[in-house]
Amino acid sequence: MIELKNDRFLRALLKQPVDVTPVWMMRQAGRYLPEYRASRERAGDFMGLCTNPEMACEVTLQPLERYPLDAAILFSDILTIPDAMGLGLYFETGEGPKFRKPVRNEADVDALLVIKPEQDLPYVIDAVKTIHRELNGRVPLIGFSGSPWTLATYMIEGGSSRDFRRAKEMLYNQPEVMHRLLDVLADSVTAYLNAQITAGAQAVQIFDTWGGALSHSAYQEFSLKYMQKIVAGLIREHQGRQVPVILFTKGGGQWLELLANTGATALGLDWTTDIGQARARVGKQVALQGNMDPTILYAKPERIRAEVAAILASFGKGSGHIFNLGHGITPEVDPVHAGAFIHAVHELSGGYHS
Amino acid sequence: MIELKNDRFLRALLKQPVDVTPVWMMRQAGRYLPEYRASRERAGDFMGLCTNPEMACEVTLQPLERYPLDAAILFSDILTIPDAMGLGLYFETGEGPKFRKPVRNEADVDALLVIKPEQDLPYVIDAVKTIHRELNGRVPLIGFSGSPWTLATYMIEGGSSRDFRRAKEMLYNQPEVMHRLLDVLADSVTAYLNAQITAGAQAVQIFDTWGGALSHSAYQEFSLKYMQKIVAGLIREHQGRQVPVILFTKGGGQWLELLANTGATALGLDWTTDIGQARARVGKQVALQGNMDPTILYAKPERIRAEVAAILASFGKGSGHIFNLGHGITPEVDPVHAGAFIHAVHELSGGYHS
Repeated sequence: MIELKNDRFLRALLKQPVDVTPVWMMRQAGRYLPEYRASRERAGDFMGLCTNPEMACEVTLQPLERYPLDAAILFSDILTIPDAMGLGLYFETGEGPKFRKPVRNEADVDALLVIKPEQDLPYVIDAVKTIHRELNGRVPLIGFSGSPWTLATYMIEGGSSRDFRRAKEMLYNQPEVMHRLLDVLADSVTAYLNAQITAGAQAVQIFDTWGGALSHSAYQEFSLKYMQKIVAGLIREHQGRQVPVILFTKGGGQWLELLANTGATALGLDWTTDIGQARARVGKQVALQGNMDPTILYAKPERIRAEVAAILASFGKGSGHIFNLGHGITPEVDPVHAGAFIHAVHELSGGYHS
Repeated sequence: MIELKNDRFLRALLKQPVDVTPVWMMRQAGRYLPEYRASRERAGDFMGLCTNPEMACEVTLQPLERYPLDAAILFSDILTIPDAMGLGLYFETGEGPKFRKPVRNEADVDALLVIKPEQDLPYVIDAVKTIHRELNGRVPLIGFSGSPWTLATYMIEGGSSRDFRRAKEMLYNQPEVMHRLLDVLADSVTAYLNAQITAGAQAVQIFDTWGGALSHSAYQEFSLKYMQKIVAGLIREHQGRQVPVILFTKGGGQWLELLANTGATALGLDWTTDIGQARARVGKQVALQGNMDPTILYAKPERIRAEVAAILASFGKGSGHIFNLGHGITPEVDPVHAGAFIHAVHELSGGYHS
């Protein structure tokens, strides 16, 4: 077992004392970095990066070379599971992910099998091992997966969607079929995250990117329930260390109490929620991760700094906060601004810890 | 003054007793109706419909011919105000609204003048008068406007946007310029809605479609504040009748208390909020409008009926609920399903009123 040189991220997740508030950025290995664009150019395309463990490792480490980030996150795509299930993931320029064989009916659902990560997604597990080795204890490595509902939307729609018409038609007209699909996905996600943990991921995050598109009641039945099932099936201790689980439902600010009751270690917040109010609501149960509006990174560094200060003040004193953006960093952001953000978190948060 | 034959909608807004829960649908005069598509064909395009008071009246009344709706809503676009300010609104097929001369800097903002509705948007005011006359008291007529922040996003971006990059750059880097823009818009919206009220609109709704894209604090400073200013400036009684004001921030479920404190009569809810919980939070101050997921209209009529029943049960007994969708009805909906929805509200709600 490699000794961790910087364990702020894990300590904050467990609400143990830290010197400063840890920070990382969703999509921190991404197109805003020229070195990432160069790697992607060499790899040919996005999936070329994901499927090559050495290259996935290379881009995972790039933001850590630039910035004093407190965590690395596996470079991969949320749609590897459906791809491994045989749906044929591909990317069309400017159009996002697509599937050649989307799930359209009951027969399509019944043909799906729970994935065996080591066998079906060896490139991801190898990437985790490679990154863990190359990180050499610098910071913890985060593994991740999409939530069952979020994966299901892409699988049914065949790609991105504006109103999730097909997915919701199945949800409302054939709820039992939707539940079977979500069950296969929940079991697959559980196996996938456990394989990442065994391979070296020291924390895992579930991205429920489209949970916020569901109604209050449908959210509980079709997204939350399956995340809860995953949380219950995860390896929660590995090599003598707790493995924190972070749940992030974008647009889920109204459902924090429900999310906190799943047994997750921490909740991700988007920028529409006041983090101080969130702490008052669920801070006894969970740590909180977030939640600066990513578009603030388009603003001047002094404005970024002011926003960091406001979020730190809203959370207040003590551990249990992992600073992050409320969603992924966007390709147009100036890397200098991202650096100003990360430095501001460390510089301004010391006074909240003692 | 024309006597109202069906005043359920106005009574529910004021929490006065009703026989059944009133219902209307956002975008009820729209592309899902074949008769609307025929009118639009005749008019040439969407703006041709908006700018011709007789045709705007024709399409406004179409859904009332089909369904026992409890309110009519002026057929128009939210972007008429920026168009009247000289930005040059146009529509590209499949791409939504665009502006020929978007607002890009301080000089552009300072060149904007508060609109004079009767002079700058005579076609809208004439449409309200025509519809009011043709309705002849059948149901109340709703006037509407976009919120200042929502209008500002289109004006700055030049059209629709995914992350509101330009609008947020102005908001974060030049907040005083953004405030000047929002001030001109708030004064224009106030004048516009007051002109609609004087011309015959018996209630008004402000659509804050993009308020939910703002952070918790930016929402208060850049959207809520200006809606509050408008509410304070509106004609609240006309021809001896109260004129209710409905505020609808899509994605604003976390901010209902703030919205209720503006002095609005009612709040619109999207489908992510449980209406019973919303009533417990703000039901003493305001009526509630909503909030079925519009995509449920893709489901079978019996499923639609079950969802109507669940929402009615969640709100519970008594007046103060106007049934609606959580957002506009979409073009692909079967008009038979829309009818099943409307009938279900009237059939199933009687027991909640006595």
